[in-house]
Amino acid sequence: MADFALGVGSIYGIKIELNALFLLLSLLILYLSTYLFMIWVLLFVCVLVHELVHSITSKWNGVTVKKIVLYPLGGGSIIDTTGLKPETEFRISIVGPIASLLLAMLFGIANMFAPAGIVRTTLQLLFMLNIFLGAFNLLPWMPLDGGRALRSYLQEKRSFLDATRLAVRASNVITVLFVAGTIAYAFLAPGFSFTYREFIVLFDVVIAFIIYSGAQSEMQSAVIKENIADLYARDAATKNYTVVKSDMRVEELYRKLLKGSAHIVLFKMGGKIKMLSNALLQKTPKAKLAGLSVGDLGADIPSVADNLPLYDAIEKMKLEESGIAVVTKRGRLFGVLLMPHIESIVALHMSQKHKQTNK
Amino acid sequence: MADFALGVGSIYGIKIELNALFLLLSLLILYLSTYLFMIWVLLFVCVLVHELVHSITSKWNGVTVKKIVLYPLGGGSIIDTTGLKPETEFRISIVGPIASLLLAMLFGIANMFAPAGIVRTTLQLLFMLNIFLGAFNLLPWMPLDGGRALRSYLQEKRSFLDATRLAVRASNVITVLFVAGTIAYAFLAPGFSFTYREFIVLFDVVIAFIIYSGAQSEMQSAVIKENIADLYARDAATKNYTVVKSDMRVEELYRKLLKGSAHIVLFKMGGKIKMLSNALLQKTPKAKLAGLSVGDLGADIPSVADNLPLYDAIEKMKLEESGIAVVTKRGRLFGVLLMPHIESIVALHMSQKHKQTNK
Repeated sequence: MADFALGVGSIYGIKIELNALFLLLSLLILYLSTYLFMIWVLLFVCVLVHELVHSITSKWNGVTVKKIVLYPLGGGSIIDTTGLKPETEFRISIVGPIASLLLAMLFGIANMFAPAGIVRTTLQLLFMLNIFLGAFNLLPWMPLDGGRALRSYLQEKRSFLDATRLAVRASNVITVLFVAGTIAYAFLAPGFSFTYREFIVLFDVVIAFIIYSGAQSEMQSAVIKENIADLYARDAATKNYTVVKSDMRVEELYRKLLKGSAHIVLFKMGGKIKMLSNALLQKTPKAKLAGLSVGDLGADIPSVADNLPLYDAIEKMKLEESGIAVVTKRGRLFGVLLMPHIESIVALHMSQKHKQTNK
Repeated sequence: MADFALGVGSIYGIKIELNALFLLLSLLILYLSTYLFMIWVLLFVCVLVHELVHSITSKWNGVTVKKIVLYPLGGGSIIDTTGLKPETEFRISIVGPIASLLLAMLFGIANMFAPAGIVRTTLQLLFMLNIFLGAFNLLPWMPLDGGRALRSYLQEKRSFLDATRLAVRASNVITVLFVAGTIAYAFLAPGFSFTYREFIVLFDVVIAFIIYSGAQSEMQSAVIKENIADLYARDAATKNYTVVKSDMRVEELYRKLLKGSAHIVLFKMGGKIKMLSNALLQKTPKAKLAGLSVGDLGADIPSVADNLPLYDAIEKMKLEESGIAVVTKRGRLFGVLLMPHIESIVALHMSQKHKQTNK
């Protein structure tokens, strides 16, 4: 359920999705207070602007944008990082927090002209929230914008792995300061009730933990990227699939599957390689199914060239949210990538590397 | 996360697990009120007794008990239903609610001798809760105990499919009455606040929906069971695996996987067929991994005979919570069952059946 997201349309050709927990929390807030809900919506319009600035800058720099997702704790622009140059990543990262600070300025100015009352209070609140949004994302805090910007800057004179290592180290310092600061503030500042104090500390510790985990995961990815730089999509490809014709009748397909030759069924249609979709098979009414052909039951899957670095192939599969991809060699089917199999290959490859360096 | 469960020990050789949502809700209740938490714990001790009576009766009747799981809305005894006789299922189902009614009687009697105050109030509450627990589970409401008991009784003179169809029909009548009754009670009974009313209706509708879905799923299973009665484990088995020796070094395994011959690696160890575990590969430190053999990285997977009805094989895989199983023929490896592949085979088989009956 945490993976579920509701598509709500697209802006400037960029799909916008609302994460399930975000929706749930929004409903809860609406139930608690209409004013709080209005602030919540306005805040997330600001978050959306922040993300749109990331995404539009990506597009301008020729980077494919998959979508923007809004989570309870902020937004995310899902972009294709394959072959992303450090200077491009720097530009994409830095424009988001700058946009938030500009928004804050606008709200600050508007606030000066607004009459006292709920409008001015709201403008002041939005001013503060956008200052926060901008400032937090300027801190060198991986995997937030500032952390990414720092890493791409460090890459000027360092490898990706070394730059990531330094940026993650800086992040961890900030995480420690953030938690220590929260605890000090909550317990030394006067006038907080016990429950409120507990709540701030808990909330900030959760945020710190999420950011810390994100930084560790960036570090892990960098280590893997470095270690499998000599592996290509073809190395992890398996040959365990059957290719059939797209006009094969379902009856014939059934007889073929009963023979147990393969459980991954591929076919070519309209110049693209597609996969027999188990989900479609389940969903189609049985009476209708009998009259169909394999071509009616296909799912699109990502396709990568055999000489694409394996790391980029993994990133592409993650981007497309697919556990499977086809590998082509000079336009012809070469093999199939399966995420668990890739993971096994990567683990084994890294163990062999380790052995060599220890010799 | 909804699938996560915490093992807390075992009683009479039966493993007890607490579902993640159950744990979360328990913590929330503890946070709200210590007394409520105590009642909650006592209630679930009663639910556990109810489930233990199911499970122990199962064992006495030679039925394998996998475990008992406690969920926010009740408990479940996970038993092996392969070849379960209707009269045995009737006995196993009916003893649970009877145990709850006996417990209610005990609390009722104890209440008469208890001094007025919190002890008596608690005993009265437990009396009421167990009456509910017993009565609800005596209603012919699939998939609760009473529904199962009714179905097994109906099987005396009917097929499994027809008995299920009748029992599900009875269930649906009760579901409609339950929802209508809740709405009538909440809106006609005086003295409820608006929020409280909303809460009861919402809670009961959620319960009704869960039970209704459970009944539909029982119906679907019965249709599948009837339709694939002529399919056996061997029919859905695929031959896509590599068999290696358990003493194969990790280095050699890596070279083999790079060749892309197969992504499922099986090996024999101690007379059992095991599978190379991707999870273990990921978890093992890379430095240690290089020194291991395939035998150190094995996971147990269920094993079924080639002539086991496919439906029973599916039930066994669900019981063992495994998406994969090996099929053996006269003790030798025959093939591998993969859940998505089984689902495809079942869907295609049913479409072909449909075609035949419509001719």
